[in-house]
Amino acid sequence: MQGILVNTKYCSGEPLHMSARNAFYAQSGGVTAVINVSACGVIETARKHRDKIANVYAGRNGIIGALTEDMIDTNKESAAAIAALMYTPGGAFGSARYKLKGIEENRAEYERLIEVFKAHDIAYFFYNGGNDSMDTAHKVSQISKTMGYPVTCLGVPKTVDNDLPITDTCPGFGSVAKYVAVSTQEAALDVLSMAKTSTKVFILEVMGRHAGWIAAASGLAGKNPGDAPHIILFPEVPFNQKAFLKRVRECVDQYDYCVVVVSEGAAYPNGKFLAEAGTRDAFGHAQLGGVASVVANMVRENLGYKFHYAIADYLQRSARHIASDVDVKQAYAVGKAAVEFALQGKTAVMPIIKRLSDKPYRWRIDSAPLARIANKEKKLPARYISKDGFGITEACRRYLQPLIKGENYPPYINGLPKVATLKNKPVKALTGRKFVV
Amino acid sequence: MQGILVNTKYCSGEPLHMSARNAFYAQSGGVTAVINVSACGVIETARKHRDKIANVYAGRNGIIGALTEDMIDTNKESAAAIAALMYTPGGAFGSARYKLKGIEENRAEYERLIEVFKAHDIAYFFYNGGNDSMDTAHKVSQISKTMGYPVTCLGVPKTVDNDLPITDTCPGFGSVAKYVAVSTQEAALDVLSMAKTSTKVFILEVMGRHAGWIAAASGLAGKNPGDAPHIILFPEVPFNQKAFLKRVRECVDQYDYCVVVVSEGAAYPNGKFLAEAGTRDAFGHAQLGGVASVVANMVRENLGYKFHYAIADYLQRSARHIASDVDVKQAYAVGKAAVEFALQGKTAVMPIIKRLSDKPYRWRIDSAPLARIANKEKKLPARYISKDGFGITEACRRYLQPLIKGENYPPYINGLPKVATLKNKPVKALTGRKFVV
Repeated sequence: MQGILVNTKYCSGEPLHMSARNAFYAQSGGVTAVINVSACGVIETARKHRDKIANVYAGRNGIIGALTEDMIDTNKESAAAIAALMYTPGGAFGSARYKLKGIEENRAEYERLIEVFKAHDIAYFFYNGGNDSMDTAHKVSQISKTMGYPVTCLGVPKTVDNDLPITDTCPGFGSVAKYVAVSTQEAALDVLSMAKTSTKVFILEVMGRHAGWIAAASGLAGKNPGDAPHIILFPEVPFNQKAFLKRVRECVDQYDYCVVVVSEGAAYPNGKFLAEAGTRDAFGHAQLGGVASVVANMVRENLGYKFHYAIADYLQRSARHIASDVDVKQAYAVGKAAVEFALQGKTAVMPIIKRLSDKPYRWRIDSAPLARIANKEKKLPARYISKDGFGITEACRRYLQPLIKGENYPPYINGLPKVATLKNKPVKALTGRKFVV
Repeated sequence: MQGILVNTKYCSGEPLHMSARNAFYAQSGGVTAVINVSACGVIETARKHRDKIANVYAGRNGIIGALTEDMIDTNKESAAAIAALMYTPGGAFGSARYKLKGIEENRAEYERLIEVFKAHDIAYFFYNGGNDSMDTAHKVSQISKTMGYPVTCLGVPKTVDNDLPITDTCPGFGSVAKYVAVSTQEAALDVLSMAKTSTKVFILEVMGRHAGWIAAASGLAGKNPGDAPHIILFPEVPFNQKAFLKRVRECVDQYDYCVVVVSEGAAYPNGKFLAEAGTRDAFGHAQLGGVASVVANMVRENLGYKFHYAIADYLQRSARHIASDVDVKQAYAVGKAAVEFALQGKTAVMPIIKRLSDKPYRWRIDSAPLARIANKEKKLPARYISKDGFGITEACRRYLQPLIKGENYPPYINGLPKVATLKNKPVKALTGRKFVV
């Protein structure tokens, strides 16, 4: 807590130009098993540069914390508490599904952000999220310049959906991939051992709204013909009920059982989700759930097999206990790199993971402009999906395999994972103005 | 593979009385993350007594393998393959939901069992299962005496439901308990961090048909007031919708979110399951599933909160990756003890786990007569359920805590748990008779 702590004040519209200024860090969108690892990378790296970054203010509930001037003073947290973020799932400061609209539609919010940044001498903005957040970070970098208070804006990639372009993978994905591959392997052993007199068809529903990366990861569980999963239903492959049921029957005939992994985003050729609930979330995306029961009923009605289904839901993206070591290392690296890039004067960029080789897996951090990443979705390419549309190819396996490698176990106390206990003390408000979101 | 391998033959109705005879081992009912650990305990211990047990024949698909004379020659498996059972979930030889009816109703099946046992000089029967299986083992011990071919019958306890009487706990339960407690803690951190703008109510459906032990284990995730899980719905507590919804609303008001863990066996005061599907399994038990969506819809319709739900289903009982170390050790110990008891001349008994102290947790193996265990169900006692019916008491916590202690990780290859690869070679049939089950 010693070092150059600068007591900043809002001073006639101009920030005080002192050598060390403040940073703002926010978590955005669905959290992951390792988003706090990136937070740890940001904060620990900033603490190594106290001459340039006096404090990292974290948004309570993400960007909402900046808009409402409800920020957390991370300088109040001990080094041990910050280090414990390495093994704490969820978003330690709170995340938000809150998308800033276009500048023209919602100038007031952008202006408010800059007002708060100015008041707290915040010169660096680290936004830890997915496509939407990269768009926001990009817009903030632009408007801050226009408004004469240029903020260094860095995206920190995070999404279990693995759908950001340019980067080889997205922190958060590797751990979900490992969870799904391990769970599929384990459940398949269970089902196979009882298929003679019990369940013949087991369905596992996984996340991945528009991209089938998570569903594809289940394919790592199977190495030999006949191994589960026997069928993967991708959002990228229009659902064909006849072909699906035929394949289920073939599997039961040949292997005694059939394990199906279905993405929540599986859809009919007309684009309608198998399990569209009709409601939409804050980003305007259709809210899904329950595709497993839809598929299960299809099997029951048409084939009559005994079935079971599991819905991994939040368990998959919070499963820090089975996180991929590669994912943990990458999540830290992007947080660290974001701070280093910022201090090098880079802005409107995001650290990306660049794959150098598959075997052995080697990677390094690079950077890419936010403009090239914002609002773009990377779907599973056709060459990663087997010809019948129900499995993954060797190319896909080569891509995915390294991402689930290594175990990074949290410490345990009395049989349960230890997690960080933060004080999350508020930063004193300085703008003297309320802002309602 | 060396040692005293006895080539047994069926010989005019009388078994050859050689010093070393054979054993039959079968897995029964729903498998667990550690049922193969018990198998390992049985086989490794038997191998230490080759002078008395020549070979352990394992039933392919449980007891069905004995009836159809389809047994697996475990002497054909290497020591390494058997040792790998320690970290392999599912049932390595196949399990079955197949209950032998009463002797009067189904004498033919019991006679067939004895016929096969005689033919293969099987003097020891190790039946690894739950209440129903203990009943079968007990009946076999009785009828074998009546038929003049006394078989030493040992139960080996196994059930994730933890509902066997007398024993302190049942192997398989501790690992599910750990999975459920860890998953609840992880998912709760996820939900809490996003409750401001996203899901407020999260529902986790867990197993436990008539006993709430698994649901209770989720309670270990919460230590302080306000910690998740906020509501546990036990089969032992008649469901009261009004009280439930009131509590959900209070939690959201007080803590911003509400985590509900619901047992598949949660039922209305009239005994009807919240999610009764109307179908029944081979044992005549109602087949359940989908209670999470029933509860979720209740919350949505009455309170309008955004919700998510997960159904752990087979993932929970096959999750060897997060097995409890205590559970693994006990699963091995009961397998080992069953063989040792058999060799001491005990029959119609089951090794039980006897708790000596809570803190530190100390236990030893004891034995109990199958007659006292068969067909009895141990429910969660009233003193383990909090007054409002929605949580666990300190007494319950003291009981459960030690059972999830310690991590017993499997080895990994390329990011996935290594599992046993058995040859599962058949034992040559000797009865010359087919038997249809």
